[in-house]
Amino acid sequence: MNMVQIIEKKKLGQALTAEEIGFFVKGAAKSEEDGGLPRYQLAALLMAIRLNGMDREETKLLTLAMTHSGDVVDLSSIPGIPVDKHSTGGVGDTTTLVLAPLVAACGVPVAKMSGRGLGHTGGTLDKLESIRGFDVSLSQERFLEQVRTIGCAVIGQTANLAPADKTLYALRDVTATVDSLPLIASSIVSKKLASGAQAIVLDVKTGAGALMHTTEDSIALAQTMVRIGCDAGRNMVALVTDMGEPLGSHVGNALEVKEAIDVLAGRTQGPLLTVALELGARMLVLGGAAKDVPEGKAKMEAALHSGAGLAKLKEMIIAQGGDPTCCEDVSALPQAPVVVPCPATENGYIAAMDTVGLGNAAQQMGAGRTTAEDVIDPAVGFVMQVRIGDRIAAGEPLAIVHARNEVSAREAVCAIQRCVQLTGVPVAPCKLIHAFVSSESVERL
Amino acid sequence: MNMVQIIEKKKLGQALTAEEIGFFVKGAAKSEEDGGLPRYQLAALLMAIRLNGMDREETKLLTLAMTHSGDVVDLSSIPGIPVDKHSTGGVGDTTTLVLAPLVAACGVPVAKMSGRGLGHTGGTLDKLESIRGFDVSLSQERFLEQVRTIGCAVIGQTANLAPADKTLYALRDVTATVDSLPLIASSIVSKKLASGAQAIVLDVKTGAGALMHTTEDSIALAQTMVRIGCDAGRNMVALVTDMGEPLGSHVGNALEVKEAIDVLAGRTQGPLLTVALELGARMLVLGGAAKDVPEGKAKMEAALHSGAGLAKLKEMIIAQGGDPTCCEDVSALPQAPVVVPCPATENGYIAAMDTVGLGNAAQQMGAGRTTAEDVIDPAVGFVMQVRIGDRIAAGEPLAIVHARNEVSAREAVCAIQRCVQLTGVPVAPCKLIHAFVSSESVERL
Repeated sequence: MNMVQIIEKKKLGQALTAEEIGFFVKGAAKSEEDGGLPRYQLAALLMAIRLNGMDREETKLLTLAMTHSGDVVDLSSIPGIPVDKHSTGGVGDTTTLVLAPLVAACGVPVAKMSGRGLGHTGGTLDKLESIRGFDVSLSQERFLEQVRTIGCAVIGQTANLAPADKTLYALRDVTATVDSLPLIASSIVSKKLASGAQAIVLDVKTGAGALMHTTEDSIALAQTMVRIGCDAGRNMVALVTDMGEPLGSHVGNALEVKEAIDVLAGRTQGPLLTVALELGARMLVLGGAAKDVPEGKAKMEAALHSGAGLAKLKEMIIAQGGDPTCCEDVSALPQAPVVVPCPATENGYIAAMDTVGLGNAAQQMGAGRTTAEDVIDPAVGFVMQVRIGDRIAAGEPLAIVHARNEVSAREAVCAIQRCVQLTGVPVAPCKLIHAFVSSESVERL
Repeated sequence: MNMVQIIEKKKLGQALTAEEIGFFVKGAAKSEEDGGLPRYQLAALLMAIRLNGMDREETKLLTLAMTHSGDVVDLSSIPGIPVDKHSTGGVGDTTTLVLAPLVAACGVPVAKMSGRGLGHTGGTLDKLESIRGFDVSLSQERFLEQVRTIGCAVIGQTANLAPADKTLYALRDVTATVDSLPLIASSIVSKKLASGAQAIVLDVKTGAGALMHTTEDSIALAQTMVRIGCDAGRNMVALVTDMGEPLGSHVGNALEVKEAIDVLAGRTQGPLLTVALELGARMLVLGGAAKDVPEGKAKMEAALHSGAGLAKLKEMIIAQGGDPTCCEDVSALPQAPVVVPCPATENGYIAAMDTVGLGNAAQQMGAGRTTAEDVIDPAVGFVMQVRIGDRIAAGEPLAIVHARNEVSAREAVCAIQRCVQLTGVPVAPCKLIHAFVSSESVERL
């Protein structure tokens, strides 16, 4: 097998075989020093894939080869059908912290491996670590034992999960080959398959703050991923949900945990809860705990209203070494010293939000990393006071900023003002759930 | 300036600006350790260029940026118009050794920087070094002085000639991006421009043994290069000549020198002389020594018949420290110990030749390098006894093999037999000169 010949084939638009895909994925899983393929050859191949595409079979083969390039987690010791959820990444998107306890409270095990914040998007692990003592690096044994005992656990990915994807993902970022449907889909799904879940609900974000900006592109990505998952023998469905503005109102790590607790305590409703119930209902269906989506939603709501969801979150926090006081008293979470309103500079209707800009503003405040070495400030961020379509008067708050100091607060105020676009004419609120994608069909909602 | 944005633009099929092209060429000229661009970014860009192309303006800008990425030779101290010739590479193609002395004898200076053999094609420097004592590494001062004094010199390229091209050329070879018209054209022309000649005749080979296999592709390459040359203010024309079979009958370093001397001594005619006269006549026109091609050809023929060409070769050999005995007695050139015929295995007409295979056979014998460290055996090679269209009987020689030992001779015999295809029906000989390309027109011949 010769890498130049493999690149040549893809350059000419031909489909690669399982052997050829296996060859370059193996070469990507190893470092160059350790006999892996030269990164310039992988880069040339990535660009050829970006420009000439991959068919359904190739994309499946690539996903499976990446899945098996490292460890594959075995969840078979967990009774029932463990169900996973994966979001393509958003701002103010704390669905996991709402979902996982509710779904587990309904009897479906959730064994979840999550990631850190990336660019403008937040990461579940960073959020959980704002709870004092919370440990996201359990051993595989403790992780499985916890899911068996209390029904849910959220930990970081093992170091050797889909190592070929790590290489290709990093290369894509610096070679302008991120925006390739087969490469995006195989990257996401390979990690999900390696995480071991038999049933997976994908939350594919769409709009200004998402990977895919249009509903059609997002549906295409969802379809590609669902097909691969089903071809690989997993039960996979996807919701396409809106990221034209932050999902929850809270942006920042401890702030987002607070919002999740507020939702589970029944103090808060709104889009975060709506999306969490839609996703969770489908997780219950895949996990065999509900016969259809309405029944799933009803069970989720029951677990919410009974307080079973919040109780489950508390159990999980305790099991992972965290201080559960925040579940009763959210002021136990880290608090930022400077809290100031971000006022609207004029009267008007909220027309649009630069969601990426808002995520970057939180990152700049210290809620995210700009380099891998940065330390997260758990307390900082902001709480949006408006949604698209809302009417606001000059001087009323667009958001409440929670900052480390006055300088950072002032910068955040300016950034948020820049990111929120006002107009003189009334604007309709955003649609929240755009489509449901299964292996059989696309249902536009 | 950001390399990811440059790759992104070309990925989307947009034209790059002079600044963008200058940025990546500068980054290619430096090693990675010395602050150059990561090779994986260059590789991704090369694939994007291969698949999305470059327009005429971009190709010119790329060529000029590569030309100026290193030293540019100044030939202005040479009286008259120095004319260069460049071949895209062939087998049994010794035109430089025939041309350079004849053109110089006609009063047009030839200051030529040549290359080493590459893959299946031979290199002028390797051929000249089969003459005892011949020095191809003169200083710039001695090189210019020699051209001023005797009218011609052939040396190796300076180390710092178009260093960006060196990087990109090596990367293209291992990333399946060799076959890109703008990349081929800019690579060749940048080195020619950096070599300093004001007028250049290109010999674009076509057919099985050439970079471009079809006449149309070869004409397109010739047009692209001629346009760049003219856009860069040089006087450039091209001939498209045949490489469906070796040009001269002799393949191998000393053997090709012998053939060139035989031609200059008037002992041998044939395709090598024909092509040398066609190219040389155009060099005389560009150099101002002939008003048109027929006059150029007549002057070249006069220099051949008077012995002025051979005398000029002798002068050049002496000036570059070589032993000129071979000019009178070709047996003074290195001789291989084993000389055996390669017989035809059946009766028939020569239908086709695997020219690349013949070049590789000579390389395997020791006439070329398979790695950069290999030492060339000047004496080995073979002399073809047939051309396409010739009739041959079983047992008659296809070629005479000159080998280092019996094993090598036997291998070469088998290889040559495999490379020469016989048929039962008569075959027309190959056309030798396919087209003449100038900045104004393409003349199919």
